[in-house]
Amino acid sequence: MLESVRESISKNQDDIISDLRKLVKHPSISAQNIGIEECAAALNDVMRDSGMTSNIIKLPDGNPIVYGEVKSSSKKTLLLYSHYDVQPVEPLDEWKYNPFSGVVADNKVHGRGAADSKGNVIALIKAAKAFLDTVGEPPVNLKFLIEGEEEISSVNLPDFVKKNKQMLKANASLCFDSSLNPAGMASIYAGLKGLLYLELRCKTAGIDMHSGLAPIIPNPAWRLVSALNSIKNDGRITVDGWYDSVNVPTKEDLALLQDLGYDEKMIKKEYGVKELIGNVTGKEALKKLLFEPTCNIAGIQSGYTSAGSKTVLPNEAFVKLDFRLVYDQNTDDLIKKLRSHLAKRGYTDMTIYKLGAEEPSKTDVNAKIVKAASVAAEKVYKKKPAIFPNMWGSGPDFVFTKILKLESVWTGCSPSYANIHAPNEFTTIKNVLDGVSYASMIIQEFANT
Amino acid sequence: MLESVRESISKNQDDIISDLRKLVKHPSISAQNIGIEECAAALNDVMRDSGMTSNIIKLPDGNPIVYGEVKSSSKKTLLLYSHYDVQPVEPLDEWKYNPFSGVVADNKVHGRGAADSKGNVIALIKAAKAFLDTVGEPPVNLKFLIEGEEEISSVNLPDFVKKNKQMLKANASLCFDSSLNPAGMASIYAGLKGLLYLELRCKTAGIDMHSGLAPIIPNPAWRLVSALNSIKNDGRITVDGWYDSVNVPTKEDLALLQDLGYDEKMIKKEYGVKELIGNVTGKEALKKLLFEPTCNIAGIQSGYTSAGSKTVLPNEAFVKLDFRLVYDQNTDDLIKKLRSHLAKRGYTDMTIYKLGAEEPSKTDVNAKIVKAASVAAEKVYKKKPAIFPNMWGSGPDFVFTKILKLESVWTGCSPSYANIHAPNEFTTIKNVLDGVSYASMIIQEFANT
Repeated sequence: MLESVRESISKNQDDIISDLRKLVKHPSISAQNIGIEECAAALNDVMRDSGMTSNIIKLPDGNPIVYGEVKSSSKKTLLLYSHYDVQPVEPLDEWKYNPFSGVVADNKVHGRGAADSKGNVIALIKAAKAFLDTVGEPPVNLKFLIEGEEEISSVNLPDFVKKNKQMLKANASLCFDSSLNPAGMASIYAGLKGLLYLELRCKTAGIDMHSGLAPIIPNPAWRLVSALNSIKNDGRITVDGWYDSVNVPTKEDLALLQDLGYDEKMIKKEYGVKELIGNVTGKEALKKLLFEPTCNIAGIQSGYTSAGSKTVLPNEAFVKLDFRLVYDQNTDDLIKKLRSHLAKRGYTDMTIYKLGAEEPSKTDVNAKIVKAASVAAEKVYKKKPAIFPNMWGSGPDFVFTKILKLESVWTGCSPSYANIHAPNEFTTIKNVLDGVSYASMIIQEFANT
Repeated sequence: MLESVRESISKNQDDIISDLRKLVKHPSISAQNIGIEECAAALNDVMRDSGMTSNIIKLPDGNPIVYGEVKSSSKKTLLLYSHYDVQPVEPLDEWKYNPFSGVVADNKVHGRGAADSKGNVIALIKAAKAFLDTVGEPPVNLKFLIEGEEEISSVNLPDFVKKNKQMLKANASLCFDSSLNPAGMASIYAGLKGLLYLELRCKTAGIDMHSGLAPIIPNPAWRLVSALNSIKNDGRITVDGWYDSVNVPTKEDLALLQDLGYDEKMIKKEYGVKELIGNVTGKEALKKLLFEPTCNIAGIQSGYTSAGSKTVLPNEAFVKLDFRLVYDQNTDDLIKKLRSHLAKRGYTDMTIYKLGAEEPSKTDVNAKIVKAASVAAEKVYKKKPAIFPNMWGSGPDFVFTKILKLESVWTGCSPSYANIHAPNEFTTIKNVLDGVSYASMIIQEFANT
């Protein structure tokens, strides 16, 4: 089959890249609510023009989901997931091309979202089209779930999936939202970390005060520093029971790690970091990345932070904490444990706000959809893929594994170092076209299992 | 004497208020370097017009000092200190009147600096003029040292004073830069807290990173939280030797405290504070305010601090710390101790910047200049003054006590609750006129001792 699909892809190259540019030209910045509706409409058009039934499903409190289907005479169904929303573009002055011009230059498509994840969306859609164009139908039924809130923690996706279990019924899910590795191998993930994003606020007075009052008036920044120090010590989270439900890495996970490398020198060079925590190297660094639960200070602020000095006793302080979770920690359980920890230690003057929550997710590395992706990757990229037992990032994979009870795999076709979430994002024409082949091949291999 | 001085003050009321308004109309914001030269020139004119010799002394790296003299046939000399610079005016939209219009309404002069401290400056100048107008000369030689950097920790004053000891030779100093208490009694301070303002910065990488890297890349905000926690615990500074040179309160200080009250309920109400540290009340609260060394977080910042969530691992964090010091702690000694404390605990990734330093200062409560102020206060305000063995704020008093080896007193004539350092600062016409009487009376009483 690969040959006829490849031929069709090659023949339709201009159409594929033109549709990608159509999507890139629509801003669709979910964090800033810019261009969402217009992009959803354009995506719906591209899906219909590619031969599938497709509709825009409005959510009561969120960005619309674009949902499409392509029927097959097979009884198997594969649920395909990606997202059409993108990250903000600031700082604008660091972009060479306008981030929404969709300029093609040097065999690249430039613009916000080209790699994350409109190139992946196009790969899924055009894979279906290739089957329709060549053999009349795909080898399994395809359901497309393209959401518009991935960059803001997929806030409304769990509820939508819960309410539409029948519509989304499938045998497995394929999430296309990642990149090749620097060596040009496909990266395949059989699990994702969870994320719990909290804000802790401490307010002690109505207004800022003269710092001469420090002997008698409590300082909210000191309260916060003390509370923070109580929840993490020497790299370990000290909240009672925080690690109770950590059930990874398994023996199989550790075995997979043996096939993977990690170049910690490159990451140090890329970010200008002198020393890694515990001076970890190679597989040891990778193991921590994939399996260590973390409590990261993403932001902290109180009082006077401009240049020079101001002798102020602040009336409020806050910290933004992002906790990465591993299987099978649970966000509701962890919030409860943190609340109880703070209450027990007298930090009753802190308010906790939940800003985001994604459960950790895991699929057996021997699952059929993982095998299908692995075989397809080797055929398309001519190299064995890197199969990760877990991803160091987070995503809404749990809606498939935990709500729909599906085996799920996370992969994608974007280039490595594509300036994702940064200025000058791009993808290459080759990456997109190979991506269509890759998606087609996964569908075919999954049908064969 | 008081009667003729009072008459002269009353006769010259319009001239006194008009000169105060002249000064208020000049911004002179030292933190933002706005209008400094113009205000110094206006002040110099007011001093010359009031009958004294006066000059603007330019400093190589700082705001000019306005220095004036009025000769007397007495052999005694009193050095008079205040400042013409003011605090910034933001937030501008909270001002009823333009902060630099010098509007007179409701028997008040409105504007930034009216109370802190241009009203006090005018009181000193017009006291000298009252003596010149009535008896031809003041009862002691007067030297006026009016600086333009008090609101930015008098950064260049110590060096200026060291280099001009001969010119500034005197028998005592009178610092006019404070307010009456809420009961309308003069407040007299025989000492001031010191101030050490530091910024600690921790930089761990060249750019912000994806927070998924938290298991292996150090977070500068966590480093700072941990370092901060090491230098203060349960309200006490835990840097080795921090309290070694604390030699107050003395028995005399404690005896003075017995005459003073402190209404902690008022401060709680004013600032909307629920609970004071240790639930202190009355004299116990006052004792802590006057004699407890503090380490206050004036500001802290790292990472993403806007609305919502961003999963970022910051590359830099900083904290602004203001330490209040009591007699006889020394800023250079304390910085050394802090550096050694941090180095010993491995915080070698922190850089310490010194943003301000004022030594603590103390004068014997039985000193002649303290007595003179006390007697004068009772005569003018018809109430016994509140004599404080120390001030909970800081100021450059140490240039007089430690560099010039003078006995020094700190007092002033501004109203209580005059919105100092806040929007809608004002003074009252009565406070200014009484202030001229008060300054005249202190000079007279000091001559009498």
